[in-house]
Amino acid sequence: MNSTKRAMSELSRRVLPATAPIVDIHTHVYLPRYAAELRARTSAPRIYSRTGGDGKPEERLLILDGEPGVGRPVGSQYWDRDQKLLFMKRHDIDISFISSANPWLDFLSPERAKVLAQDLNNDLDEYCSSSPQAEGFSALKSIYGFGLLPLVPDISIPSVLDTIKQITTLSHISGVIMGTKGLGKGLDDEALEPVWEALQKTNLVVFIHPHYGVDSKAFGDRANGHVLPLALGFPFETTIAVTRLILAGVLDRYPDLRLLLAHSGGALPQLSSRLASCITHDPVVAKRLKHDARYYLGKLYFDAVAYGPEELAFVSDVIGRAETYSSAGGEYDADIGSRRMLFGTDHPFFPPLEASQKWQSVEDNLKAIQSVGVWNKSARANVLGLNALRLFNLEH
Amino acid sequence: MNSTKRAMSELSRRVLPATAPIVDIHTHVYLPRYAAELRARTSAPRIYSRTGGDGKPEERLLILDGEPGVGRPVGSQYWDRDQKLLFMKRHDIDISFISSANPWLDFLSPERAKVLAQDLNNDLDEYCSSSPQAEGFSALKSIYGFGLLPLVPDISIPSVLDTIKQITTLSHISGVIMGTKGLGKGLDDEALEPVWEALQKTNLVVFIHPHYGVDSKAFGDRANGHVLPLALGFPFETTIAVTRLILAGVLDRYPDLRLLLAHSGGALPQLSSRLASCITHDPVVAKRLKHDARYYLGKLYFDAVAYGPEELAFVSDVIGRAETYSSAGGEYDADIGSRRMLFGTDHPFFPPLEASQKWQSVEDNLKAIQSVGVWNKSARANVLGLNALRLFNLEH
Repeated sequence: MNSTKRAMSELSRRVLPATAPIVDIHTHVYLPRYAAELRARTSAPRIYSRTGGDGKPEERLLILDGEPGVGRPVGSQYWDRDQKLLFMKRHDIDISFISSANPWLDFLSPERAKVLAQDLNNDLDEYCSSSPQAEGFSALKSIYGFGLLPLVPDISIPSVLDTIKQITTLSHISGVIMGTKGLGKGLDDEALEPVWEALQKTNLVVFIHPHYGVDSKAFGDRANGHVLPLALGFPFETTIAVTRLILAGVLDRYPDLRLLLAHSGGALPQLSSRLASCITHDPVVAKRLKHDARYYLGKLYFDAVAYGPEELAFVSDVIGRAETYSSAGGEYDADIGSRRMLFGTDHPFFPPLEASQKWQSVEDNLKAIQSVGVWNKSARANVLGLNALRLFNLEH
Repeated sequence: MNSTKRAMSELSRRVLPATAPIVDIHTHVYLPRYAAELRARTSAPRIYSRTGGDGKPEERLLILDGEPGVGRPVGSQYWDRDQKLLFMKRHDIDISFISSANPWLDFLSPERAKVLAQDLNNDLDEYCSSSPQAEGFSALKSIYGFGLLPLVPDISIPSVLDTIKQITTLSHISGVIMGTKGLGKGLDDEALEPVWEALQKTNLVVFIHPHYGVDSKAFGDRANGHVLPLALGFPFETTIAVTRLILAGVLDRYPDLRLLLAHSGGALPQLSSRLASCITHDPVVAKRLKHDARYYLGKLYFDAVAYGPEELAFVSDVIGRAETYSSAGGEYDADIGSRRMLFGTDHPFFPPLEASQKWQSVEDNLKAIQSVGVWNKSARANVLGLNALRLFNLEH
């Protein structure tokens, strides 16, 4: 029995239900306290009320100024835990790791950001710890969470470190979600070094998630709804952020950081060999990093929110090859990819356009995992749920 | 014998040397007339002279204002045909399809753009038709080309159509290279409809190539040389341009357009299932297109300039699945991918940092093609050269 199988077998003796669990690591919430903050605002991001097309009052969420369609409808699915549990039940999701949706605290003053971060972390811990037992598991709740850090311009680093410390005291939070702005200068800002150090030391999972996309002028004047910023802008933003992190040597200095990338890393996997080539050919950066850029992709975790099996197989392949790009040399590992990818839904975004029991976005992601030809049954079980339980140390 | 094998066999009876040919479809030139135009300018894009680090005069190319390192060295490798032929010989390239490098005519007035486009097309035809016979081929030159269209704001469409007509009279030009701006509003501009119609009718190959990248503010303040704009910005620009083209229904209206995408389509393959999902979930565009977005990737051609075998295998896979997303239904085709991908070098960009006989960027792309596990010998021969000869009708 190899170590993977042994770990799975031990895991199943302790906590697992008869069938492999489904765990959703990409699922969002606006906690009531956060929704109230957005309702009190007069510019984006905000929640505002208007009379809907059916003559009834409706609340709408405007995430960015100038967003098409004056934002999107927002309702109890964003804050009501019963709705989250109902969604989970409909899609046979056993456990969810919920995170605040963008734009987090980015728009707040340092003072307000710190207070709200800690209050929201407490709210979230309560939301999770009072959630029902996960059905069929002996000792797990159905909901766990990613906390928030007050990453805004002019915040003091000790305030951020305080909040990391606070999170480590919260029993149902074992990670943080963050955007790509850091303190306003991006994630390659030297000022963040103590934050990476603390995140590595405390072993918190860092979920990197986009919000701003890229300059919307690139998307032209045609009416394409939210398609271009969501389908392209979001993944581009994540790709740039993580590439900058790699180029700044953060993963050389903090090799045990556990970074989880939204939307399967955006375009980073497909552009990683081009990135490596550009680095090799540029005198400014050619000798800066310890390894070929492709090596670092094997140090990352990727959600499996890519909507197609070919995309998942490719990300798995790119993780599998990473060690061959270590400066120490290494072997291709066909198994490692499926141990670093994790099922997610992006709920409550991407709701079906027409009333239906199941969400197509979720079904597509589940079906994609089941259809990856190079993954066997055990690999699929890892991606569907076991990886998440391990990553968050819930197998103990 | 299936039709693929039959076509290859006929092809080899007519023109092929004993070993499979290597054809480079992504290789650039600044023709002397174009270099002179750039030397006469005082703002980017321009070529200017300065005293280099070794005390000798050097020319530098500044493509974009604010570019890092005040541009890059530029020399005879950009305009001298003997240098191109020497490069080809060094890498066993039998035939090159050369194209003007960015930014083409984008910065010119409509009047100047039209005159220069047609003059440069004549220059290019002469450059190609007077090039040596391709060694080992019975009736082919070693160099062919992509022409230029005067795609600038305020140009009259008849001027563009005139230039398309001119190109059809030039014996060694069977395609055009274009950027992503169109007439200033992008490639989804309705004003371009007659241009797509004429390009489809004349069967010219349209090589879509980036220049502007994305807003450089996204790349932050750290000194990373050209890495971020080249490795990420370029592919993002291509991805956005082609996605906008698809969303505008251009490929529904002109299904026989032959579009060739630089850098293996950028990030389009990896984001194509996400794109399809975003389209399905957005009321503005949900029912606009004839097919699922992924179908259209099977209508495109991709250069094989991705620097890694896993990337190439993935692009091949994404092309292979395209028919399954036809609204008429269809089968996965494992062969079709390798028939729509074409070797390229991006010469004279990405030169080696240290003097060496062979260019690593080229060797990486050749090795990547040879290392794609799902491609057999015949598939590799297609990608290395046979596809290009077919695409440009040089097998007749």
